Amino acid sequence: MISKKTITALLILFMEIVSAQSLKSPDGNFQMNFVLRDGIPYYNLSYKGETILENSKLGFKIYKETTYNFKDITNQESLDLASDFEKVDEQRSTKNENWKPVLGEKKFYKNHYNELVITLHNKAQDRNIIVRFRLFNDGLGFRYEFPQQKKLNYFIIKDELTEFKFPTDMKAWWIAGDYDTEEYVPQTTKVSEIPSKWASAVEQNASQTPIKNGVQTPLMLKREGKAPLYFNLAEAAVINYPASNLIVDAKNYKFTIDLTPDAQGAKGYIQTSAVTPWRTIIAAPRAEEVLASKMIFNLNEPTKYQDTSWIKPTKYMGVWWEMIIGKSQWAYSTADNVKIGETDFTKLTPNGKHAANNERVKQYIDFASANGFDALLVEGWDIGWEDWFGKSKEFVFDFLTPYPDFDIKMLNDYAHKKGIKLIMHHETSGSAANYERWADRAFGLMNKYGYDAVKTGYVGNIIPRGEHHYSQWMINHYNRIAEKAAEYKVMVNSHESVRPTGLSRTYPNWIASEAARGTEYEAFGGNNPDHQTILPFTRFMGGAMDYTPGIFQTKLDYYFKGDKRFVKTTLAKQLALYVVMYSPLQMAADLPENYARHMDAFQFIKDVALDWDDTKILAAEPGDYIHIARKAKGTDNWFVGGITDENARTYIVDFSFLDKGKKYIATIYEDSKDADYINNPQSYHIYKKEVDSHSKIKKRLARSGGYAISVVPKK
Amino acid sequence: MISKKTITALLILFMEIVSAQSLKSPDGNFQMNFVLRDGIPYYNLSYKGETILENSKLGFKIYKETTYNFKDITNQESLDLASDFEKVDEQRSTKNENWKPVLGEKKFYKNHYNELVITLHNKAQDRNIIVRFRLFNDGLGFRYEFPQQKKLNYFIIKDELTEFKFPTDMKAWWIAGDYDTEEYVPQTTKVSEIPSKWASAVEQNASQTPIKNGVQTPLMLKREGKAPLYFNLAEAAVINYPASNLIVDAKNYKFTIDLTPDAQGAKGYIQTSAVTPWRTIIAAPRAEEVLASKMIFNLNEPTKYQDTSWIKPTKYMGVWWEMIIGKSQWAYSTADNVKIGETDFTKLTPNGKHAANNERVKQYIDFASANGFDALLVEGWDIGWEDWFGKSKEFVFDFLTPYPDFDIKMLNDYAHKKGIKLIMHHETSGSAANYERWADRAFGLMNKYGYDAVKTGYVGNIIPRGEHHYSQWMINHYNRIAEKAAEYKVMVNSHESVRPTGLSRTYPNWIASEAARGTEYEAFGGNNPDHQTILPFTRFMGGAMDYTPGIFQTKLDYYFKGDKRFVKTTLAKQLALYVVMYSPLQMAADLPENYARHMDAFQFIKDVALDWDDTKILAAEPGDYIHIARKAKGTDNWFVGGITDENARTYIVDFSFLDKGKKYIATIYEDSKDADYINNPQSYHIYKKEVDSHSKIKKRLARSGGYAISVVPKK
Repeated sequence: MISKKTITALLILFMEIVSAQSLKSPDGNFQMNFVLRDGIPYYNLSYKGETILENSKLGFKIYKETTYNFKDITNQESLDLASDFEKVDEQRSTKNENWKPVLGEKKFYKNHYNELVITLHNKAQDRNIIVRFRLFNDGLGFRYEFPQQKKLNYFIIKDELTEFKFPTDMKAWWIAGDYDTEEYVPQTTKVSEIPSKWASAVEQNASQTPIKNGVQTPLMLKREGKAPLYFNLAEAAVINYPASNLIVDAKNYKFTIDLTPDAQGAKGYIQTSAVTPWRTIIAAPRAEEVLASKMIFNLNEPTKYQDTSWIKPTKYMGVWWEMIIGKSQWAYSTADNVKIGETDFTKLTPNGKHAANNERVKQYIDFASANGFDALLVEGWDIGWEDWFGKSKEFVFDFLTPYPDFDIKMLNDYAHKKGIKLIMHHETSGSAANYERWADRAFGLMNKYGYDAVKTGYVGNIIPRGEHHYSQWMINHYNRIAEKAAEYKVMVNSHESVRPTGLSRTYPNWIASEAARGTEYEAFGGNNPDHQTILPFTRFMGGAMDYTPGIFQTKLDYYFKGDKRFVKTTLAKQLALYVVMYSPLQMAADLPENYARHMDAFQFIKDVALDWDDTKILAAEPGDYIHIARKAKGTDNWFVGGITDENARTYIVDFSFLDKGKKYIATIYEDSKDADYINNPQSYHIYKKEVDSHSKIKKRLARSGGYAISVVPKK
Repeated sequence: MISKKTITALLILFMEIVSAQSLKSPDGNFQMNFVLRDGIPYYNLSYKGETILENSKLGFKIYKETTYNFKDITNQESLDLASDFEKVDEQRSTKNENWKPVLGEKKFYKNHYNELVITLHNKAQDRNIIVRFRLFNDGLGFRYEFPQQKKLNYFIIKDELTEFKFPTDMKAWWIAGDYDTEEYVPQTTKVSEIPSKWASAVEQNASQTPIKNGVQTPLMLKREGKAPLYFNLAEAAVINYPASNLIVDAKNYKFTIDLTPDAQGAKGYIQTSAVTPWRTIIAAPRAEEVLASKMIFNLNEPTKYQDTSWIKPTKYMGVWWEMIIGKSQWAYSTADNVKIGETDFTKLTPNGKHAANNERVKQYIDFASANGFDALLVEGWDIGWEDWFGKSKEFVFDFLTPYPDFDIKMLNDYAHKKGIKLIMHHETSGSAANYERWADRAFGLMNKYGYDAVKTGYVGNIIPRGEHHYSQWMINHYNRIAEKAAEYKVMVNSHESVRPTGLSRTYPNWIASEAARGTEYEAFGGNNPDHQTILPFTRFMGGAMDYTPGIFQTKLDYYFKGDKRFVKTTLAKQLALYVVMYSPLQMAADLPENYARHMDAFQFIKDVALDWDDTKILAAEPGDYIHIARKAKGTDNWFVGGITDENARTYIVDFSFLDKGKKYIATIYEDSKDADYINNPQSYHIYKKEVDSHSKIKKRLARSGGYAISVVPKK
């Protein structure tokens, strides 16, 4: 008997066939079909003949008014730009190029896709929109384009309606959706379980606006079973448009785009011609292929910077961790109410715990210099930290005035003599309007003293008040600061900013960002041992993260008797993170004194490269383990790192990636047999061994352990 | 029989006496009583023994949270800072000084008051607030102060509760309350009639957020009858605080402060120590005394600028009126969708109506120079006007890039050679965030080319979106721009900005602003003939207005056959406005060609001074007439001006203000006998006459007419 459901399915199939445009990936494995059914646009995706994304809607709701004499936008009438369409044009093309990232995981990134561009005409509104699909061998990217036209010059988005509808339930690695924070603990559940687990996935944060049943991108999914399939949903090239979360429809395994609203509830002010970010679906039968995908970067525009020679990999230490754990303070004084421009900070009572003081900074400089670092971050150098947070204070920092015990000229001179650059810190406290006001002077100051990198921060609610960390205004802010920094030849490392969407291709000086739960949380609430095995599949898909690894002194009772906090890692795993977590900006986050007690292990941090000619994802499973080998830029040196979650594991490192017939010396940093992230985290073993492309070394990884290997050609 | 009401009144009286602190004005005519009844603070005011303001509440509602991890402020719990008070301190002092305004109506302003400072302790919250009262011979000013204290460092205002409760109904000259525009038509009704007339007092505006039953300040009131009393309610020194409107309780003749909310609905982010603006009540039996009051300026802080020599009275012409009437355009091209930084304006099709072109600007320079002007405003000089308005476009201008037909260097050189400075125009389209972003570069450009004054504009909804023209953020913006301009020694004339509150004392380079319905409305919807007889009692109380008088060609069918629009004035009245409307920045707004046809009348505009050693308010009644005589700075020249409303009037000018025994030559510009603002506006008569301090000249003012007299010592 043919069921009703089957008939419906057949009918739908029939209609699709009639009205669909198909696009195949260069290798023929993927097929994307664009479907126009009763004027409503959909797309679906198959892999090797099997539907992996069912018909998923495309389109928008926009506000009816195209000029804006109104205030309360959310009460305005809206129009559908998601139906009543006819296809009026169709274009196809192919691209196959290699491009060279300024800094990257490989010498060249391959950008190979087939493209289908559909122009849709909305009859009632007499407006055209375009959907541009690019199908790669690793997945699909598509975006909307709004050509400038008589009846579409300016409009406001009420909602983007883009869907991702999967045929089955899947395993998901997700964090709760939010307009203001990306620092929630990753969750691992079925898609169908997200709503029931959602509320408990939302913790307290300095600024937060959780979105019910929302999850953040990049979202990692796995269809389990005999023929597993991994998916990564994300967005690429978020420019002049809000960043999005995904709302889950757990019954239908469907995700829908949810754009971050602005202070008025609007979700994007568009002036044509304009394009949206790319919606990306990476899909592969092996998790390693997801990690290897450069699709998100391929979908970003090449940089317009003429000169990128000043953009360099940077290994740095920081006057930072001692404040994070509570040993020192950012603030200089005991005051709790200060006003920039009014308070005389030289008259305040020092609190005696201010780390960014001349003597302490010189100690860091000495150590960083002696160990070949490039730079030293100094936080808490500028006046205003006494009441910097949670006061909705707009003029919280001027980014110009050092505390009385921070001699900016002397310290920069001292650092430069020793081959170290100081890294500027611009914490904004979320007061982005204030930062923009001072940006030229602040970057001017950096140029004056020879700073070439800045760490920016956005802790707390955004000012302009009512805006969100990921709303269009703030997206423009982050991009504007990247461009502004480039004017001054400054590299940017942004914290609490929007998750990266491959923009390092366009703004290569935006060298890294935080935009996820970093090492600092080990001192706040702790990261789960599987955290670092998930991040490369999620947060890192869009760009480098300043995760700030390298904590050797993991137990905080070392500082504070009885303190139960500890960094949930072995020491060897911390070393492995320098390979596993790609970033051309890498911190050795611990205190010099702690490194001094483990100089043998510290050697790996000193040696490891930050910029690469090649990268091999040896093995990876989200939430379980990651093993990666990378070839240092312009050398024959390789670095290998492997980490595991809360489970001890063994792994056989296969050195077949090495040049055939060549001999190398491997220096291996591994968990000792008795190592354990809880009971014995600092137990490691270091040894050297000759290896070649036939070598295989079995490694035992402790619970939340890891290993790191540097491989140098034998002389 | 003693009625219940009387008993209540007596009881209240008794309690007031028990708990009241009294303050008298220096001349003893006013008495202010501060009353604490059941922990609730009130004030009342009497004049010559008669209660003129009944017990009126003081205080605030504030949000309970003092740190702000929340987003939706309006749903937060609030606390009363308006009850549960005890008086813990009382201070008294007196001040009697003369201070010299940088530019002003008199050589010295007298600042003479008795002060009472009450410190109130809120028991439940353990917080102190201070109310500072200053009682002058012309009225009362008071403000709240929030000393820095353990339990009051940061808070958000939910509402200011300040009341002004009058004993009787009165005549009121008001415009409808709004958070975004001050450009409504003035209304003249009883206070009790305001609610029923309110809706019809709200017209369409480019940006508006009307406040039901709200009226704007300065609000002019008159207790009519045998012993009339005039009141002016306003605010002084609005700094880091939202501007306010007044909500009318028409049954109780009571007005309550309504602060402008921000994008989140909050009404002021306060960091102690902090003060509010002053609440001002000027009161006098004669309307002339209200006009003469400098109380609002006295309540502002002296300027901190070390050097004010660059702040000068400025008489200017402008490439402006021809755009206002529609003869020319601000925009250069026929395009309707342009992007700064992307559009190549040299490739666009010129619309042929762009007034800010080299040839036309040179014509204006020639004429302004030949007639002794200081400056020429040029609007429409910079790229972006094609779609500048109503598009919620943030990056609407860069304030740097001239249109292809405006040679900024050549024109400034040309102007400077002829003794003219060009006035820069910075229209922001309400996109204040964008303006701040470009401000340093824009002012730098002005310095480069020798501009010393800027006209700013804020037409349209504010960006940051959700903010209002008068919310705290924008108040700070306007003040910041005044300070920024001072850094560059630039004078500011701001349009669509907040109504001035005497800040020209603190920021003397903020030389004038619009902030009311100016002459431009004559071309839009028309101003009533009584408009200029009201403005000095309302808008001008807080500072100079760039009203842009001097329209000689009042009928617009001169330009456009059949055009019914006309400026509702006689030509002579336009001359009188240069005396009646105090501004050290005065425009001759009409086209050079029109002045060329009336050079005899134009002579008055050429001669009239802008800065004064003395001012005599000869006669004035709001809505009816104003006659003023002013003595030009550093000379013995006097200028007299008189205007009337829609009624023709006669007035005898009494020259007793002249030095005794000295002879003067008066040049009199008056309405001809047949002059009439509708039928014969350009009919004027000019003659000379010798006058001395005994002279009296009878003047006939036509309907919406006036006269102007220049008085020069006989040589």
